[in-house]
Amino acid sequence: MEFRIEKDTMGEVKVPVNAYYGAQTQRSIENFKIAQDINKMPKEIIKAFAYLKKAAAITNLEAGVLPKEKSDLIGQVCDEILEGKLDNEFPLVVWQTGSGTQSNMNVNEVVAYRAHVLHGGQLTDKDKFVHPNDDVNKSQSSNDTFPTAMHIAAYKMLQEVTIPGITKLRDTLAKKAEAFKHIVKIGRTHFMDATPLTLGQEISGYVAQLTHGLKAINNALPHLSELALGGTAVGTGINTPKDYSENVAKNIARLTGLPFVTAENKFEALAAHDAIVEAHGALKTVAVSLMKIANDIRMLSSGPRAGIGEIHIPDNEPGSSIMPGKVNPTQCEALTMIAAQVMGNDVAISVGGANGHFELNVFKPVMIFNFLHSARLIGDGCVSFNDKCAEGIEPIEANIQKHVQNSLMLVTALNTKIGYYKAAEIAQKAHKEGTTLKEMAVKLGYVTPAEFDEWVVPAHMVGEIK
Amino acid sequence: MEFRIEKDTMGEVKVPVNAYYGAQTQRSIENFKIAQDINKMPKEIIKAFAYLKKAAAITNLEAGVLPKEKSDLIGQVCDEILEGKLDNEFPLVVWQTGSGTQSNMNVNEVVAYRAHVLHGGQLTDKDKFVHPNDDVNKSQSSNDTFPTAMHIAAYKMLQEVTIPGITKLRDTLAKKAEAFKHIVKIGRTHFMDATPLTLGQEISGYVAQLTHGLKAINNALPHLSELALGGTAVGTGINTPKDYSENVAKNIARLTGLPFVTAENKFEALAAHDAIVEAHGALKTVAVSLMKIANDIRMLSSGPRAGIGEIHIPDNEPGSSIMPGKVNPTQCEALTMIAAQVMGNDVAISVGGANGHFELNVFKPVMIFNFLHSARLIGDGCVSFNDKCAEGIEPIEANIQKHVQNSLMLVTALNTKIGYYKAAEIAQKAHKEGTTLKEMAVKLGYVTPAEFDEWVVPAHMVGEIK
Amino acid sequence: MEFRIEKDTMGEVKVPVNAYYGAQTQRSIENFKIAQDINKMPKEIIKAFAYLKKAAAITNLEAGVLPKEKSDLIGQVCDEILEGKLDNEFPLVVWQTGSGTQSNMNVNEVVAYRAHVLHGGQLTDKDKFVHPNDDVNKSQSSNDTFPTAMHIAAYKMLQEVTIPGITKLRDTLAKKAEAFKHIVKIGRTHFMDATPLTLGQEISGYVAQLTHGLKAINNALPHLSELALGGTAVGTGINTPKDYSENVAKNIARLTGLPFVTAENKFEALAAHDAIVEAHGALKTVAVSLMKIANDIRMLSSGPRAGIGEIHIPDNEPGSSIMPGKVNPTQCEALTMIAAQVMGNDVAISVGGANGHFELNVFKPVMIFNFLHSARLIGDGCVSFNDKCAEGIEPIEANIQKHVQNSLMLVTALNTKIGYYKAAEIAQKAHKEGTTLKEMAVKLGYVTPAEFDEWVVPAHMVGEIK
Amino acid sequence: MEFRIEKDTMGEVKVPVNAYYGAQTQRSIENFKIAQDINKMPKEIIKAFAYLKKAAAITNLEAGVLPKEKSDLIGQVCDEILEGKLDNEFPLVVWQTGSGTQSNMNVNEVVAYRAHVLHGGQLTDKDKFVHPNDDVNKSQSSNDTFPTAMHIAAYKMLQEVTIPGITKLRDTLAKKAEAFKHIVKIGRTHFMDATPLTLGQEISGYVAQLTHGLKAINNALPHLSELALGGTAVGTGINTPKDYSENVAKNIARLTGLPFVTAENKFEALAAHDAIVEAHGALKTVAVSLMKIANDIRMLSSGPRAGIGEIHIPDNEPGSSIMPGKVNPTQCEALTMIAAQVMGNDVAISVGGANGHFELNVFKPVMIFNFLHSARLIGDGCVSFNDKCAEGIEPIEANIQKHVQNSLMLVTALNTKIGYYKAAEIAQKAHKEGTTLKEMAVKLGYVTPAEFDEWVVPAHMVGEIK
Repeated sequence: MEFRIEKDTMGEVKVPVNAYYGAQTQRSIENFKIAQDINKMPKEIIKAFAYLKKAAAITNLEAGVLPKEKSDLIGQVCDEILEGKLDNEFPLVVWQTGSGTQSNMNVNEVVAYRAHVLHGGQLTDKDKFVHPNDDVNKSQSSNDTFPTAMHIAAYKMLQEVTIPGITKLRDTLAKKAEAFKHIVKIGRTHFMDATPLTLGQEISGYVAQLTHGLKAINNALPHLSELALGGTAVGTGINTPKDYSENVAKNIARLTGLPFVTAENKFEALAAHDAIVEAHGALKTVAVSLMKIANDIRMLSSGPRAGIGEIHIPDNEPGSSIMPGKVNPTQCEALTMIAAQVMGNDVAISVGGANGHFELNVFKPVMIFNFLHSARLIGDGCVSFNDKCAEGIEPIEANIQKHVQNSLMLVTALNTKIGYYKAAEIAQKAHKEGTTLKEMAVKLGYVTPAEFDEWVVPAHMVGEIK
Repeated sequence: MEFRIEKDTMGEVKVPVNAYYGAQTQRSIENFKIAQDINKMPKEIIKAFAYLKKAAAITNLEAGVLPKEKSDLIGQVCDEILEGKLDNEFPLVVWQTGSGTQSNMNVNEVVAYRAHVLHGGQLTDKDKFVHPNDDVNKSQSSNDTFPTAMHIAAYKMLQEVTIPGITKLRDTLAKKAEAFKHIVKIGRTHFMDATPLTLGQEISGYVAQLTHGLKAINNALPHLSELALGGTAVGTGINTPKDYSENVAKNIARLTGLPFVTAENKFEALAAHDAIVEAHGALKTVAVSLMKIANDIRMLSSGPRAGIGEIHIPDNEPGSSIMPGKVNPTQCEALTMIAAQVMGNDVAISVGGANGHFELNVFKPVMIFNFLHSARLIGDGCVSFNDKCAEGIEPIEANIQKHVQNSLMLVTALNTKIGYYKAAEIAQKAHKEGTTLKEMAVKLGYVTPAEFDEWVVPAHMVGEIK
Repeated sequence: MEFRIEKDTMGEVKVPVNAYYGAQTQRSIENFKIAQDINKMPKEIIKAFAYLKKAAAITNLEAGVLPKEKSDLIGQVCDEILEGKLDNEFPLVVWQTGSGTQSNMNVNEVVAYRAHVLHGGQLTDKDKFVHPNDDVNKSQSSNDTFPTAMHIAAYKMLQEVTIPGITKLRDTLAKKAEAFKHIVKIGRTHFMDATPLTLGQEISGYVAQLTHGLKAINNALPHLSELALGGTAVGTGINTPKDYSENVAKNIARLTGLPFVTAENKFEALAAHDAIVEAHGALKTVAVSLMKIANDIRMLSSGPRAGIGEIHIPDNEPGSSIMPGKVNPTQCEALTMIAAQVMGNDVAISVGGANGHFELNVFKPVMIFNFLHSARLIGDGCVSFNDKCAEGIEPIEANIQKHVQNSLMLVTALNTKIGYYKAAEIAQKAHKEGTTLKEMAVKLGYVTPAEFDEWVVPAHMVGEIK
Repeated sequence: MEFRIEKDTMGEVKVPVNAYYGAQTQRSIENFKIAQDINKMPKEIIKAFAYLKKAAAITNLEAGVLPKEKSDLIGQVCDEILEGKLDNEFPLVVWQTGSGTQSNMNVNEVVAYRAHVLHGGQLTDKDKFVHPNDDVNKSQSSNDTFPTAMHIAAYKMLQEVTIPGITKLRDTLAKKAEAFKHIVKIGRTHFMDATPLTLGQEISGYVAQLTHGLKAINNALPHLSELALGGTAVGTGINTPKDYSENVAKNIARLTGLPFVTAENKFEALAAHDAIVEAHGALKTVAVSLMKIANDIRMLSSGPRAGIGEIHIPDNEPGSSIMPGKVNPTQCEALTMIAAQVMGNDVAISVGGANGHFELNVFKPVMIFNFLHSARLIGDGCVSFNDKCAEGIEPIEANIQKHVQNSLMLVTALNTKIGYYKAAEIAQKAHKEGTTLKEMAVKLGYVTPAEFDEWVVPAHMVGEIK
């Protein structure tokens, strides 16, 4: 490979001749040879930086501290980053400095050097028209840009991937709940036969879970909408022009179309990332819900002959390399694995969030890496589960009928007629002797056959169907 | 010990002759010999049951399905439970059936048998005037009472212990932030010297963390205010009178003075406890904040001679059994241990929440046990930390002065005057040669002494103080 | 209450007149009003302290630094503590200083003052014959005694409760595996019908899990057997006589009957508790196993009519307050709740373990609190599950037969005869048309009826039974 | 793109014309659009499959159930996979079926079709010379191959990356401990000044931590060395030739050079992955150690002027985009972020491990994904930390001297001369009045100046240096 020489305050560094990045990016590549093939800084962070660098350049121009030509050039390169044209210029990994300084400098360098080229210069020029620190990073510090990029990336991912994914699945389940609202089936508590409900009611519980989960995510958005930018090095806003914080937040809001505001307290915004912890708590709650829902669906569809078999889900692929004809609830499996991952990510985020010191939390990259991972997995996972599984859920009515008719727990309907103790006696003896409830109820002399038929009607035991 | 004979649907059981509880409680004592000395069902759950049993009796009376005499007796015993008069009658542990059925039956038995005695009967009477299942548990199931008790207990604890505790600490820190708002000190990022801020600003970040944490808890309250009661066995409300759910929720709200409502979807309310998962996510966020705050305070107060020593915290007790005169930041240690516990409890709750099946989650006791533990620890811990530590925080101005005056990072003020690179050169050489910044800045010829004194003023580097 | 005056290096304190403890214990009661009713320092720690204080007194006597009379008195009080005679003298909670100093001083005070009384003095005497710091704590620091008590308590609990509990359950399951080794049943993978195995084979997997779990616990014991005692304040052993570390470890080993040794590196032994983290990792592995086993057993016993119903487990109590005759897998529920708790405790321990600083980890109490909780829960939980559930597992042969005979996955036996693709075609068509495998296999012309009967024999598909 | 038609038991699928994979791989791409750009199945799993497919082919040949020509072709393709020649043929993600069936089939298809081409055929041929299921997967199931691949990949990663990385760091620290063994410095407990130790002693604690961590990992290897292969569908070994399990394990051991054996109990080996849970518990223990070590090092190197500043670590890169000349402990930050990630991964693995059902755990991909991630991060992270930080640790003797000389805790040396209480009085008054210990000790009349100088010598307080 051919190289050129770049320098930073520590001295000279050899950089690939055509790379837009410079000395500090190169140092980071060499200093952090940790999982470089699998743990790149998430691309969503790079794009978030593009928004904020452009917004900062505009705000600096408006404040009269950056010339229009430089501001425009910076904005132009940021647009190229957003279009994905410079994807290969961001080689750094998550496992770097905990402030994300090196990724901030990576962006600063790429923007500066690409701007220099757009301005007619050459990468090998010793002096560049736009300077990474003095121009691109003007009125900024890694300490306020990286957390700002975290919030932009997190908020966007939630809005564009996570919330739509969950909503899509929720809406499909709501349709199923409506479609199956009169299909009376056995209930199960403690994994044991219980009183009946309808399949629609059962599914309506999942809908309510996801609706509450969406509320939980939405509750966390205001904290995420607060941006650290303008706090610079330690939260005091050193080296920023007047009203910079408010103005740069407005520009970011305008560029992203999202309701970002400047954080009321910049010291919190640099030193802690509780907004990430809090919002991921909501994602974890959704993961917990998804584990429950996917488990239920796999169990309800189990069989085909020796399971519960009350619903059918789509056959998407051959399920076994050895058992011919086998089909498995693979979408449930992907979704429950995702739930496990999100539950783990939550701990990584909490540990990172708890260990900031003084004016700076230096677990920023690991926190946002896990956050974006979870947000993406839940969003993608819900869509996949929706498209390849939930939409195809259909009742297997023969099994549903058989299970509900056989159930000993229909005896509960007799509580208010003959009391809990006599009802229990009927159920216990029917179980022991293998008879039907009706046979035993009549045999014990507690009800007449006609009374039994009038009182014990599964469809009357499911309450009012709305 | 003397015994009497009680029976349930499975047969006879020997019970201590004076115990108000009956057969099912006794069975549970014998069946679950697990940590019986340390893990009793939390008393807050028993009290929550007292509210709900009384509310149910009133609602049943209003619905015409329970006679006034029985309703009144039930209410009277519930009041005794709330007054703590029957504390010894609830011997069961957390590690029982996952629906909490046995604790529900424990309450049913105690209420019924104590009511029987209040009504003039004797514990040894074969038939009791009030029946545990048919009267005390009327229109109820363990499956809807236990989650209702979970929400009542959780909501009350948050309102009475957790939120006041956090608020108290937050308010004290806010006073400190105000009091110290002009004390300029060195900032630290990456645990390294950085640009200055004021001690008040530093503490204001903690205030902002706790304010956000309180918001997060408050965001979770509406979900917690939803009560499962009325769903009975599987969520359909079997064996309840008309409008029971709404009415019993109103009665609980009235008795507790808290804004409880009936859950919109009872299937969710029995089969999942996402409200607990979600609300504990907020508690965990606060724990993460407290870990950060307490760590900072212990580090800032470290020394007395070989540490950072910028603040003084109260000397509460001799700190060492071997090192005479030692004083330690023990309140910080208690609080950070609490944070660790809450982070662990969060996982226990999530694992429990994720593993419900079909119509019932059967990790109810472990979930509420951990929730109440966390809510209590945070509340108590914040008050202890407040009273014995935070209120006594005082600056050690001599050290604060020394640190900020020596700092090489004051050079940042020169960025906008001479550029980042020259400023870096000054700092690096001053560090290497052990000189002051000013000496080196002048020696390198980048500024005059007068310029330096004008431009590099810590008090001008901390932004606007509000 | 009546009081007497005690003093420590900070001054005078009022103490209940009959309490054996003194000023520092009283200070801690007042300084740490955190969950005082539910989170006492575990009694196992107090007993461990009794062993170590006695051992230290003996070792100090042998080293010639403590007179025989004092050493004997100290030993005598320690014996009283071990006999439980002084249980009420240890009122402190977990949430205190993170070094456990106050519990060490609590023990020092109680031993000294009780010794003084045994020696004929009175609690109100200003000077006591035995001094808490200079005699009872001689050659010790909280920093080495508390971690020593942690290891003693943890090791003893594992040996006396955890390992025997797991072993008991493992042995019962092994008997069941043997008893049911020829009962051919359907296998289930992905919760779907699969090729057959025997019930004994299925259970043998649980036996193997627990056997491996026991190995994992045993692997962690050597690290736990290392004692910090002799490191005193920071690990250097300041203020200890010659060969003290080795000798005191020998005395502890002798008194406890357990193979304790002095830690090779005392700096690690004070500053980190990786032995606790490591050993709890083994407990968590067992918890993960128990979750799997208990889940399987509850699912296999589900029904009685609409579930899998292949095994019967004991009916221990009425299962529902509303559904008469219902019986639930309550022991499985207690055990899976325990598993959730242990998984949470693991995180609390890890967070505590990771956050030591310099010469001391100050999360000692929270770490051992969680460790002992887990060790106890697993031990007690396994015994309860064993006695009330596992021992009573019996096959329900009718259901087992029905499930295995109906299974479409028996077709796998034809892979090696007619190939995977044709076998798949048989299974898929039989499923679609609701026929038996044999009917479809013959109808498709791939095998003759006689071939089918010869080749497809569930009992031949389960491998060699050992 | 151009396509060809492939088929499986469910019908025809369009596949990229030059892809070596077939219908089932393509179905999985389409069915699981979940994080496809970031969560590919780890390449280590693909390579592990290559070892096992080759070993299976050899074993099948030896058993007389696969012709030599096919066996050789299979082996040849496996070698190509191991050489990295077919890397692009494995496009599937982690979030697929929980048994990893689709990745097994991906390998089966690539091996079969590439073998067909090597044999002279064309990808577009309808029938291939080697069949994915009947030949490549012969005597196998996904259910035993995937867990076998998990163990091979995990064991190899531990041996090749994790253990060498930890060992390298441990050895460097051991050298530092030796080099600095006579540098007396202040100790710190509770982050407060304590009695002295040497810098070498302090570092020796880290060495002991890592040595114990290596033991913990090594303890977990035997369980990981057990291979599931031969259990096939449910653990019974259906469709395998005689002695297949033992022979294929021997072949894998030979090919990999690692001590693999066949699992004693195949039911456990398919249904549970406790070996992964257990081994990751050891990794998490190491992560906890690394958090402690890296935290200490960053704190010891803090400053340069307002911190502790007792050691110097290498300056690797400019530390701030705004503060000129700032250098940060970035390697410490990367390592502590890794520790947080591993602590999170541990929960994901435990949740996955706990949720297997009956004969199969279907959280296999998420478990091994997290395991390999942790093993890699720890290995790479230790090497990076070693090379760029630990090797360059040097004492800053001026600060070390100053801190130890000023320390009030040197008073501890007087305990055995004048008693704990008088010593405490000296320290407290010296602190209050800002004097030296000696001044106060003499002033109070407890010692003479000569006694003080004889008794209070830091270098005599650090114990015996080995």
